[in-house]
Amino acid sequence: MPDNTIEELIEIKRDGHRHTQAQIARIVSSYVNGTMPDYQMAAWMMAVVLRGMEHDETAWLTDAMARSGTVMDLSSIPGIKVDKHSTGGVGDKTTLVLAPMVAACGAPVAKMSGRGLGHTGGTLDKLESIPGFRTSLTSEEFVAQVRSIGVAVIAQSPDIDPADKLMYALRDVTATVPSVPLIVGSIISKKIAGGAHAVVLDVKVGSGAFMKTVEDARALAGELKRTGEALGLKVEVLLTDMDQPLGCTVGNALEVAEAIATLHDEGPEDLFQECLALGSRMLVLSGVARDLDEGRSRLVGAVESGAALEKMRQWVAAQGGDPRVVDSPTLLPSAAFTRDVVAYEAGWLAHYDAEGVGRAAMALGAGRARLEDAVDPAAGLVLHAKVGDRVEAGATLATLHASSEELLTAGEDRFRNAVGMSDMAVGARDLVIEQ
Amino acid sequence: MPDNTIEELIEIKRDGHRHTQAQIARIVSSYVNGTMPDYQMAAWMMAVVLRGMEHDETAWLTDAMARSGTVMDLSSIPGIKVDKHSTGGVGDKTTLVLAPMVAACGAPVAKMSGRGLGHTGGTLDKLESIPGFRTSLTSEEFVAQVRSIGVAVIAQSPDIDPADKLMYALRDVTATVPSVPLIVGSIISKKIAGGAHAVVLDVKVGSGAFMKTVEDARALAGELKRTGEALGLKVEVLLTDMDQPLGCTVGNALEVAEAIATLHDEGPEDLFQECLALGSRMLVLSGVARDLDEGRSRLVGAVESGAALEKMRQWVAAQGGDPRVVDSPTLLPSAAFTRDVVAYEAGWLAHYDAEGVGRAAMALGAGRARLEDAVDPAAGLVLHAKVGDRVEAGATLATLHASSEELLTAGEDRFRNAVGMSDMAVGARDLVIEQ
Repeated sequence: MPDNTIEELIEIKRDGHRHTQAQIARIVSSYVNGTMPDYQMAAWMMAVVLRGMEHDETAWLTDAMARSGTVMDLSSIPGIKVDKHSTGGVGDKTTLVLAPMVAACGAPVAKMSGRGLGHTGGTLDKLESIPGFRTSLTSEEFVAQVRSIGVAVIAQSPDIDPADKLMYALRDVTATVPSVPLIVGSIISKKIAGGAHAVVLDVKVGSGAFMKTVEDARALAGELKRTGEALGLKVEVLLTDMDQPLGCTVGNALEVAEAIATLHDEGPEDLFQECLALGSRMLVLSGVARDLDEGRSRLVGAVESGAALEKMRQWVAAQGGDPRVVDSPTLLPSAAFTRDVVAYEAGWLAHYDAEGVGRAAMALGAGRARLEDAVDPAAGLVLHAKVGDRVEAGATLATLHASSEELLTAGEDRFRNAVGMSDMAVGARDLVIEQ
Repeated sequence: MPDNTIEELIEIKRDGHRHTQAQIARIVSSYVNGTMPDYQMAAWMMAVVLRGMEHDETAWLTDAMARSGTVMDLSSIPGIKVDKHSTGGVGDKTTLVLAPMVAACGAPVAKMSGRGLGHTGGTLDKLESIPGFRTSLTSEEFVAQVRSIGVAVIAQSPDIDPADKLMYALRDVTATVPSVPLIVGSIISKKIAGGAHAVVLDVKVGSGAFMKTVEDARALAGELKRTGEALGLKVEVLLTDMDQPLGCTVGNALEVAEAIATLHDEGPEDLFQECLALGSRMLVLSGVARDLDEGRSRLVGAVESGAALEKMRQWVAAQGGDPRVVDSPTLLPSAAFTRDVVAYEAGWLAHYDAEGVGRAAMALGAGRARLEDAVDPAAGLVLHAKVGDRVEAGATLATLHASSEELLTAGEDRFRNAVGMSDMAVGARDLVIEQ
């Protein structure tokens, strides 16, 4: 039997049939080695979006992607390596808080991260707002740092999961992003290629997230867990609310400052609770805590004792950053111009369009439309009210930070469109929807 | 309102929504001017394959494609310009017979044609097997020839319907061929851009055609008629059988010889009947005949009087070919090697896999796998039995023509796989299924 042509492989999915493992491996390797051009991959991915994949097809895809480049060897780091991943949200700075908290409790944190695109900021951009912070370590420096201080967060190296890099960029421009098998392949393959043994996944639900409904998020969560476990990865999934930004800040340096405040036990409650929910699962998966209650109390202890803050100082210093920011956040970049957005009328803050808040932050200069764009580390916004809060006329809803008055005006327009007021009392939102 | 991005346009079709006329015009013009890359067109076309298009979307697509380049102006040729088009079949040489027959009856034939790819040969390849025949005339030469002798068949110029050229090539490699809206857009846009007022469409049904079932062919026929008429083109559609090759020859010079024999009233009955069915409709649409009966008798008269043969001589000579081939087909290229394929056992010829017969002809050298490949004008095969015929053991089923014994062997293997015998009597097939 001669091999199928690539056209015949696309036909199989177009007609709603099931691929074999060998067919999926061939699609991924042909794309990575350049013999399957972008237009064929685009047609195949659109067929996947519209025809779906069965569970084992998704696992085969994920496996083929993970093996498309180097698989990190973290075996010289003692212990079970637990990673975390969020499906992307506005104002999500949990990695900045969790990495030192979890490391302070004794679980190794060896994390590779990406840059932000669009309204969801990337962890690397946030870390790089710390003066001097380097995110491009070699694999050897990365492993050595985790061995010595228990924590490192770096940019994913180009030889890790090249299939995902190529497919992700293509999905973005061919309207093939919203597909459970393609999302699962992207997330889980990177974790496996990054050398993780276990992963805690935070699936965001709501207006600021990919998954707009709990039902969709639950379907994604189930497939993430099933696929990871089929490939030998321990997986815990949490569904969390993204109908409003997490915490009170959106923007790189502003989010670092808020993360540091949280390690000082002075951060917003929703952010701290989410970090406890995710972190306790990381400690259980890594074997450091027996159950979630023990995990929580160890994390709270690490904050109260100052151990988490001390770990943050070590981490920042190890990656070339100025550790004094941990005690003096004013050393972080600050914007030349700020503006308070005030409420025109009294009422209750009824809802945020989180995606709209993200776009306001982008308009202020905090995000990038294309990967080659630069971000303004100081730009962003600070919310003074969250959903359910009573707001009086003339009270400040948010403070905007930018490098010019023009940018402030562009950001204010978008921000005002993203906030909904009500003249009736509105309840606060639950953060963790399902666990 | 800012324009949608191309990604947003792809999303609309991905999600099964309806495009506006402006959106479709933008997709086609963006693709032709290069701002919409192949991978975005591939994703959009796969979404069209799987989501379909409504009637008016198909008409808008067809219109945008027709206007993507030059629209031929045939107004200086008197009369109603009627074109014909076949959806592609094996051994289909109807244009070679029809063009001189119809022109001899007084209806102008100004036809642009394409090259064959795969197992369905192209009219241009067949014509070019006539020594000296030129298919690349300028528009002026083309129009002048139709004005002077009433018939010209040339290669489509590159500035006619560039959208179709680009989309057709991309569909071929992205498994997006089988889509009624895309097929209709391709066929009708070329006819409109070619300057036709009316067109007779021959939709092939069966194993050798795109449409494998009568139901599928009927759906395509309906959409072809509806779309053409929505854009001001008169359309007649005929459904014809392609479960076996048309006539007895497959291969360029062999098909020219068979077409000439048909004009001598010595051709196979199925080919002649199909030409009468198509040609009588062309004469009615052009206003030369009042009804199909009159059309048929004029066509039969043109053959019997020798007027059709004389038109063929004029046509070949006008395009630089040697008109003596019309009376001495031995002047056509002939193969160095031939081989008779004989029946191992007696029985009835039960069915042909027409596509398989086409692949046998390709293996003999008559077709091309890629557009840049050369074809052997002399290669091909001659059938000695058609479906329903009684065949004795040792009788010749077909004679193969090629440039080497190796090619004959490759062709014989494929031919034997494409012919099905039965030990019970089998009825002959009806050629015209629906009119």
